[in-house]
Amino acid sequence: MKILVLHSGGVDSTTCLAMAVNEVGAENVIALSIYYGQKHDKEIRAAQAVADYYGVKRLELDLAAIFSGSNCSLLKDSGLDIPTDTYAQQIEEADGGLVSTYVPFRNGLFLSSAASVALSHDCGKIIYGAHADDMAGAAYPDCSLQFVEAMRSSIELGTGGQLTMDAPFVSATKAEVVRKGLELGAPFHLTWSCYEGGDKPCMKCATCIDRTAAFEACGVTDPILKEEN
Amino acid sequence: MKILVLHSGGVDSTTCLAMAVNEVGAENVIALSIYYGQKHDKEIRAAQAVADYYGVKRLELDLAAIFSGSNCSLLKDSGLDIPTDTYAQQIEEADGGLVSTYVPFRNGLFLSSAASVALSHDCGKIIYGAHADDMAGAAYPDCSLQFVEAMRSSIELGTGGQLTMDAPFVSATKAEVVRKGLELGAPFHLTWSCYEGGDKPCMKCATCIDRTAAFEACGVTDPILKEEN
Repeated sequence: MKILVLHSGGVDSTTCLAMAVNEVGAENVIALSIYYGQKHDKEIRAAQAVADYYGVKRLELDLAAIFSGSNCSLLKDSGLDIPTDTYAQQIEEADGGLVSTYVPFRNGLFLSSAASVALSHDCGKIIYGAHADDMAGAAYPDCSLQFVEAMRSSIELGTGGQLTMDAPFVSATKAEVVRKGLELGAPFHLTWSCYEGGDKPCMKCATCIDRTAAFEACGVTDPILKEEN
Repeated sequence: MKILVLHSGGVDSTTCLAMAVNEVGAENVIALSIYYGQKHDKEIRAAQAVADYYGVKRLELDLAAIFSGSNCSLLKDSGLDIPTDTYAQQIEEADGGLVSTYVPFRNGLFLSSAASVALSHDCGKIIYGAHADDMAGAAYPDCSLQFVEAMRSSIELGTGGQLTMDAPFVSATKAEVVRKGLELGAPFHLTWSCYEGGDKPCMKCATCIDRTAAFEACGVTDPILKEEN
């Protein structure tokens, strides 16, 4: 069987790529990366480096046009700064609406695109790296367990059972994802998570804070924070 | 409330557009048309004409790149002819796989795109014109009632309840859709359904046959078959 991994170039999807390679071999794995109009291309370049490391086939889609009407602060056309607030603060400021870093139905689009591309390339499974901490205390409804389950049903029903979707970490913490990746020797030194696109992670945004804490919980220093990088 | 209608330029989605205009007024309706690499642009031009007729805002997305790896016979890069077989024959030929006119997870992608665009444009509802006959005896699993329900859940959960999806005809026949459109005075003379892109409908493909039968069941002649067109 061939497997398609939705691959952002971050820690979670890189762990999924490691699992797919471990399961069916690099020659049967496709890494799909999606550009959606974010302010920098650091993640996409990280995804390229990780795919090269494993020698897997890599596909890239540009869906930025779909999000062109959005004023999400992660998008380069928004004119908004990326907040350095915690997720809890962002939720409070959103006052019942959606936080400024929520990209409209992004994960639904990513999974739908993955399903389409997977079918076109004869894959029988998608692996998707959502995990329990992604929900960020309700900041991102398109990361909830219920949403992932609904999309899994949509994909299985909408493809007549030709395709399944595996989200191995949907009930796990980010620290558990990192632990699994470390076990498999995932090339975390090549990954990128920070919302900003600097030379080094900003260490201020919520994703930097979560990533660092996950490595610390595993008793290791995040390799991208080591001096030699 | 603003409503987004997923609008192909065919009979079903034009009836949905008529319902949306009837419900909230043309100024609060957005018609979204999606090009996916099909062999002709007759539907897209029909969608433009219908949107102009109602004076609604219209958006267009080009998702052809997502389907570029597919060999679906509806796509211009496939090299396959569009079959003139009935759906039952197509299913038999597919031998447990998917029929050649199935576009990989197209409706999942369309609905996900609609959800994203709807949120970006402050719409609270999507109207989607799937109906019971779309399933075509299992040829198109991404038209099944179960699939539509799973996508409805995905959209509502993934947007934190900011958006709902209404599929008013999901249990109705195509004839019932046409009847509703006739009641509302929908401009069916501007619509296009045929898989081929000729000057007149081919009257051979499965969609032509279904469309004609639906009008006949309502006791009227399809306006696009009248001489003056």
